[in-house]
Amino acid sequence: MRLLFIGDVVGSPGRKMVEQYLPKLKEKHKPNIIILNGENAAGGKGITEKIYRTFLEQGIHVVTLGNHAWDQRDIFEFIDDAKALVRPANFPEGVPGKGIVYIQIEHMEVAVINLQGRVFLPAIDCPFKKADELIAEAAQRTPIIFVDFHAEATSEKQAMGWYLDGRVSAVVGTHTHVQTADARILPKGTAYITDVGMTGPYDGILGVDREVVLRKFLTSLPVRFEVKEGRSQLNAVLIDVNVKTGRANKIERIIINDDHPYFE
Amino acid sequence: MRLLFIGDVVGSPGRKMVEQYLPKLKEKHKPNIIILNGENAAGGKGITEKIYRTFLEQGIHVVTLGNHAWDQRDIFEFIDDAKALVRPANFPEGVPGKGIVYIQIEHMEVAVINLQGRVFLPAIDCPFKKADELIAEAAQRTPIIFVDFHAEATSEKQAMGWYLDGRVSAVVGTHTHVQTADARILPKGTAYITDVGMTGPYDGILGVDREVVLRKFLTSLPVRFEVKEGRSQLNAVLIDVNVKTGRANKIERIIINDDHPYFE
Amino acid sequence: MRLLFIGDVVGSPGRKMVEQYLPKLKEKHKPNIIILNGENAAGGKGITEKIYRTFLEQGIHVVTLGNHAWDQRDIFEFIDDAKALVRPANFPEGVPGKGIVYIQIEHMEVAVINLQGRVFLPAIDCPFKKADELIAEAAQRTPIIFVDFHAEATSEKQAMGWYLDGRVSAVVGTHTHVQTADARILPKGTAYITDVGMTGPYDGILGVDREVVLRKFLTSLPVRFEVKEGRSQLNAVLIDVNVKTGRANKIERIIINDDHPYFE
Amino acid sequence: MRLLFIGDVVGSPGRKMVEQYLPKLKEKHKPNIIILNGENAAGGKGITEKIYRTFLEQGIHVVTLGNHAWDQRDIFEFIDDAKALVRPANFPEGVPGKGIVYIQIEHMEVAVINLQGRVFLPAIDCPFKKADELIAEAAQRTPIIFVDFHAEATSEKQAMGWYLDGRVSAVVGTHTHVQTADARILPKGTAYITDVGMTGPYDGILGVDREVVLRKFLTSLPVRFEVKEGRSQLNAVLIDVNVKTGRANKIERIIINDDHPYFE
Ligand SMILES: [Fe+2]
Ligand SMILES: [Fe+2]
Ligand SMILES: [Fe+2]
Ligand SMILES: [Fe+2]
Ligand SMILES: [Fe+2]
Ligand SMILES: [Fe+2]
Ligand SMILES: [Fe+2]
Ligand SMILES: [Fe+2]
Repeated sequence: MRLLFIGDVVGSPGRKMVEQYLPKLKEKHKPNIIILNGENAAGGKGITEKIYRTFLEQGIHVVTLGNHAWDQRDIFEFIDDAKALVRPANFPEGVPGKGIVYIQIEHMEVAVINLQGRVFLPAIDCPFKKADELIAEAAQRTPIIFVDFHAEATSEKQAMGWYLDGRVSAVVGTHTHVQTADARILPKGTAYITDVGMTGPYDGILGVDREVVLRKFLTSLPVRFEVKEGRSQLNAVLIDVNVKTGRANKIERIIINDDHPYFE
Repeated sequence: MRLLFIGDVVGSPGRKMVEQYLPKLKEKHKPNIIILNGENAAGGKGITEKIYRTFLEQGIHVVTLGNHAWDQRDIFEFIDDAKALVRPANFPEGVPGKGIVYIQIEHMEVAVINLQGRVFLPAIDCPFKKADELIAEAAQRTPIIFVDFHAEATSEKQAMGWYLDGRVSAVVGTHTHVQTADARILPKGTAYITDVGMTGPYDGILGVDREVVLRKFLTSLPVRFEVKEGRSQLNAVLIDVNVKTGRANKIERIIINDDHPYFE
Repeated sequence: MRLLFIGDVVGSPGRKMVEQYLPKLKEKHKPNIIILNGENAAGGKGITEKIYRTFLEQGIHVVTLGNHAWDQRDIFEFIDDAKALVRPANFPEGVPGKGIVYIQIEHMEVAVINLQGRVFLPAIDCPFKKADELIAEAAQRTPIIFVDFHAEATSEKQAMGWYLDGRVSAVVGTHTHVQTADARILPKGTAYITDVGMTGPYDGILGVDREVVLRKFLTSLPVRFEVKEGRSQLNAVLIDVNVKTGRANKIERIIINDDHPYFE
Repeated sequence: MRLLFIGDVVGSPGRKMVEQYLPKLKEKHKPNIIILNGENAAGGKGITEKIYRTFLEQGIHVVTLGNHAWDQRDIFEFIDDAKALVRPANFPEGVPGKGIVYIQIEHMEVAVINLQGRVFLPAIDCPFKKADELIAEAAQRTPIIFVDFHAEATSEKQAMGWYLDGRVSAVVGTHTHVQTADARILPKGTAYITDVGMTGPYDGILGVDREVVLRKFLTSLPVRFEVKEGRSQLNAVLIDVNVKTGRANKIERIIINDDHPYFE
């Protein structure tokens, strides 16, 4: 089974990249399941129902979220009915949405878990213990388990990768918006990458207008983040999983931008 | 002019990788100048005079530091006499050491600046304003200026890259210990990468023993970080600079580990 | 010379307390100079020109600010013309406003400095070094120097008190919105209190609606902070300064609320 | 029933204050139960078995802890056998020690709970939810429940006070080492104070040598915190509880230092 995971889609530049390249990537790589982190899909902040539905129509199987999950008020209207939308599972109990979804892919069941880190991020429940709990549950149903670990610190992300090695098919990091070059299969068969990187503006700062971010750093004055216009990029990973064992054989990074143009 | 920059060398596993592969990398790539981040060279924490001298003997031209600069007491004994050692220039005024060094490379002068970020790190002086100040000074002497920006947040690192684009030869990030896949030449000619990655243990968490780090994440109990034994890796970048303009033509990532074995 | 310093005035409940009790406090204590922290005066966030002008009309001599300085867009319109308004002096160079003001009080010149801490707050310039710089300047003109140190951590605030002991008339802390019981005259004659406390709702959480804050703590969901309605409080300090030496003789805490009703 | 709660005892200066004044305070106020925060009792960092035992011999009924709980290795040897020692209950599951103790006071059972905040402190389990859980348990046994909430942020501490109002006898804050002036009985009968303050050096910075702390703030260089010598202080609160209802009638602050000398 082949998974295509597309990193944090930022605003309309990101959505346009998905629209433009997803058909090509499907054609070329024939993924069986496509997951996309959509926490920044609506103007850089959160996601709306309309955008979520468009992703599904484009063939995305599951949309994951992160610390920007609640940025659009719209989310509270549709998250509980959105069967293919996961928000970090270790958010405090009682908040809307769910942290694990199961989907049917060609007669196989696949579990997708979203978790959020706590280093340099708000204090929520322990992602490691929540992972234990959800994996115990999911393992009853399927060996194929994907984890999007949305976190800032490389230490926490690597820790999660090693912690889950041999227990899940893949741990892919999101949130920093910069793809890391450390994709690998860990010794017990879990595919791992610290961060998939983002999909959106290529000449911004994490997708945001540069002038605005620099003004923030130089003056500490309040600014209004806006998605950068101009050239775009797409960052993703492709993971091959043995459906019998649930372990991964291969993880490959995908980068599409003007410095890494797409080749058919 | 070709620069080889080696990312955070961690403990003896990292130093051994330098010892083993630097001769090969020199032979293969013929760098004119070699810079290495040594903030974790001594047991993962700081650097000693002995280690610093060994680096120079191995052909390293400049050693940069970061938030671990002061971890070995030894540093206070030799930093002021160490002509090829830079610590973050935006440390508070009056602390030992210097944040910029000039070295002679084949009749050319080269400036090397070390700066440290403030996001998720201690509050020190503004790295952007300190950069302005040092670049104004260095530009009087040479167009060839390298910056090691030691920082945690991808936003701050990208901001520095764009802020200095066209004013320095390269901005290379260090500190997160994970190489990023975003090496590029920015539009005005500055080579940029968010993080070069580290040189040391391949199966640790940022180079540290996994059990210890996981114990920390799971229990919050105090632990003693120890450098992981076993397989090692080396992460670096190679940058080609036009010595007339000081701008970069090319930046190439180097990864050596069991998944990316070295080819002569 | 007697100073009355009123802590962070929060929203209309805070402004009403000032309106109601300032005449009484003037009558009773006959302060020569009145300073008020106004960073939360407008609906809990920032200050407007109208509110600032009302404070002046009520007899406030200087209004200090803090991390909420820029919360109202209005501030950028009037801060540069507002002669009695200080914002933290260690904000990055080039931002609007000023960090020190001199006012004439009965033929004496008085300097009022606003500084902001960096522990658990954004990384700005060093408040200790900025204090040195401004005190060196102010000391040329007057021995009477008041400092509002707007900071979170008790360690940083006590450190500032001791650092400036003997060099200024008073260091009063603001920002935590809870009055501390440690008002004292430090050995070299500087009056000190870790926090003056706030002026506004008595039954909120730092002045904010309780349900909203608790919802935030329990769910981490986004909330909109609103100023609590209901009973109010006023927190202030009274400091007596020897105008010859600029050193303080006495510091007295003032608390007005239903548990500490005002006595004429 | 009368509770005497003594704030964070720092090093030998703090222990000496307890030795000197506890007999006097007992004599004068006749408390039925005495609780003391001992997280800094051993040289400013943690507690040893010897010190713990001495506290018990002096008549302390329960010793509470906080973020410094594990600073002395000794703690792991005796915490599980120490019946009157509580560490924050919301530390991750599985760590040594316990977060609630029950003691017999004159035929009455009293519950003492220790919790730790998460704002500006490590990410542990939710203190609010842990409070719910423990109070549900304790309320089965006794209406008299004391909570030491060890936390940094005034917002989180006030939030806990209001959250538990009417459910426990008292919520007293510790950790900032500065007594606050906001002791009150909340509307539903819970005694509350944001911070009791510390017991130890009077002329240090939170009990630590001033030169060392200032050096840290001015240079960011590593320093070794040492307990300040010289004059000392004691900070405490006295709380009267109705044993039938478990609600408090009165809370009174106690400060002993050279500016507030003890009167028999
Ligand atoms: Fe994102
Ligand atoms: Fe994110
Ligand atoms: Fe490092
Ligand atoms: Fe570092
Ligand atoms: Fe405030
Ligand atoms: Fe504030
Ligand atoms: Fe303490
Ligand atoms: Fe503490």
